[in-house]
Amino acid sequence: MKIGFLGPKGSFSHHVAQEAFPADTLVAFENITEVVKAYETGEVDYSVVPVENSIEGSVHETLDYLFHQAAIYAVAEVVQPIQQQLLVTATDKPVEKIFSHPQAIAQGKKYIRQHYPQAKIEITASTAYAARFVAQHPEENYAAIAPKTAASEYDLQIIAEDIQEMDENFTRFWLLGQSISDLPLYPKEKKMTLALTLPDNLPGALYKALATFAWRGIDLTKIESRPLKTALGEYFFIVDINNEKANLVSFAIKELETIGITYKILGNYTVYTISEK
Amino acid sequence: MKIGFLGPKGSFSHHVAQEAFPADTLVAFENITEVVKAYETGEVDYSVVPVENSIEGSVHETLDYLFHQAAIYAVAEVVQPIQQQLLVTATDKPVEKIFSHPQAIAQGKKYIRQHYPQAKIEITASTAYAARFVAQHPEENYAAIAPKTAASEYDLQIIAEDIQEMDENFTRFWLLGQSISDLPLYPKEKKMTLALTLPDNLPGALYKALATFAWRGIDLTKIESRPLKTALGEYFFIVDINNEKANLVSFAIKELETIGITYKILGNYTVYTISEK
Repeated sequence: MKIGFLGPKGSFSHHVAQEAFPADTLVAFENITEVVKAYETGEVDYSVVPVENSIEGSVHETLDYLFHQAAIYAVAEVVQPIQQQLLVTATDKPVEKIFSHPQAIAQGKKYIRQHYPQAKIEITASTAYAARFVAQHPEENYAAIAPKTAASEYDLQIIAEDIQEMDENFTRFWLLGQSISDLPLYPKEKKMTLALTLPDNLPGALYKALATFAWRGIDLTKIESRPLKTALGEYFFIVDINNEKANLVSFAIKELETIGITYKILGNYTVYTISEK
Repeated sequence: MKIGFLGPKGSFSHHVAQEAFPADTLVAFENITEVVKAYETGEVDYSVVPVENSIEGSVHETLDYLFHQAAIYAVAEVVQPIQQQLLVTATDKPVEKIFSHPQAIAQGKKYIRQHYPQAKIEITASTAYAARFVAQHPEENYAAIAPKTAASEYDLQIIAEDIQEMDENFTRFWLLGQSISDLPLYPKEKKMTLALTLPDNLPGALYKALATFAWRGIDLTKIESRPLKTALGEYFFIVDINNEKANLVSFAIKELETIGITYKILGNYTVYTISEK
């Protein structure tokens, strides 16, 4: 099979694709929209896209595209801890400039200040771009903050491991495609993500929507309002619900419809972790 | 008075500070945390920080800092439409490279593809950085996508106006400091932003929290769950409520407390626009 992921090679999306599909052909795409479109047009069999980071929040490019423009949904979720490494082309050089994505720089700031207080910081579009750029300039005294996958992808040396400050940094990735059940990962729980559009203005309608879940004891693990992009102040709501009791959930969804709340299923999936714990 | 804002000069934060405090001393800070701290330490009298963009969503650095670390809250909100200009040092040169923040690049992509299909795109940390960088290299054929404020700040020429694709792009800015009532802007509505921490796990508690507002007909204009950073899967909730009926709101808040829901006020403010419409 062919699997699309958010590139360049060495990104966290790439790592998730490698772990979920170790024997398949992985194809990098330039941005999230291109990854999703690759599945829509049949160019790949599955697409791997980030959907939420515990620090930065939702990846709106993914959620908005699925809500506004696509007729596909997530069939699996992979939770990837975000651990950052300091990478160089050779360990015997000084580090004068450090490249990375703003979040990785923020996460590694404490380590950098202690160990490389004189280094200049340069921002890149992603951690994997930073690693690729450093690899392309071996004559310079450059370093990148990037994932382990980027070290092996671009043949870089790790001079400092896990330099991120917070341990609670993880990203949720979604697999878009046909239902799949044999991923070589660790299944944890079943969830569903819905986008709700309410019939008239808040608060009554949102309250009723949540009531359909609350009455049935269905756990809500995330809720977020997003602008509908039609008029200022109109929103849709993204909710993540526990889907272990699938029958109860399907009743709740039917009830939503009968009271005039429109829903779109953005995902109906098992949540997997990459390591066992 | 001294007013802190998210720099560098020429940023949208700078423009909001200029409009709200036309006669005061404006001081740029490097990142959001520094802007907030400048108010906390008494270095400035007010701080201007972004809190939400209609496309990118919440600015978590602002909300998380106010929730986790600060004892201050927003006293005014300014809604700033995001309009992007294409800026150069001289209009008689070709444009070979265009610098900007990823969101501004995405917003201007259609225009750039049509008019400068050959130009290379380079990512910067902010639109104002891009403008400053272009101004510092007049010998190069560079352009920046940045706000109008940046053009006057860095003495750049606007070669294309309002090149952003979506009209519904605006950013909410918060003013942190002592209560203030005489801003030279257009007051629209009164709002309050609360961070709610629920006593036990969802869904019952969130449902009850929303009930205290719904029963009183208090409009909820935004809701978002954020990781508490204590354990995976524990959240706090940011809600924006209409505060025109301040008595009803204060009853609702008291009721929250009596049922065991903890709240922190992140903002109690009038929403202002910069132009009249």
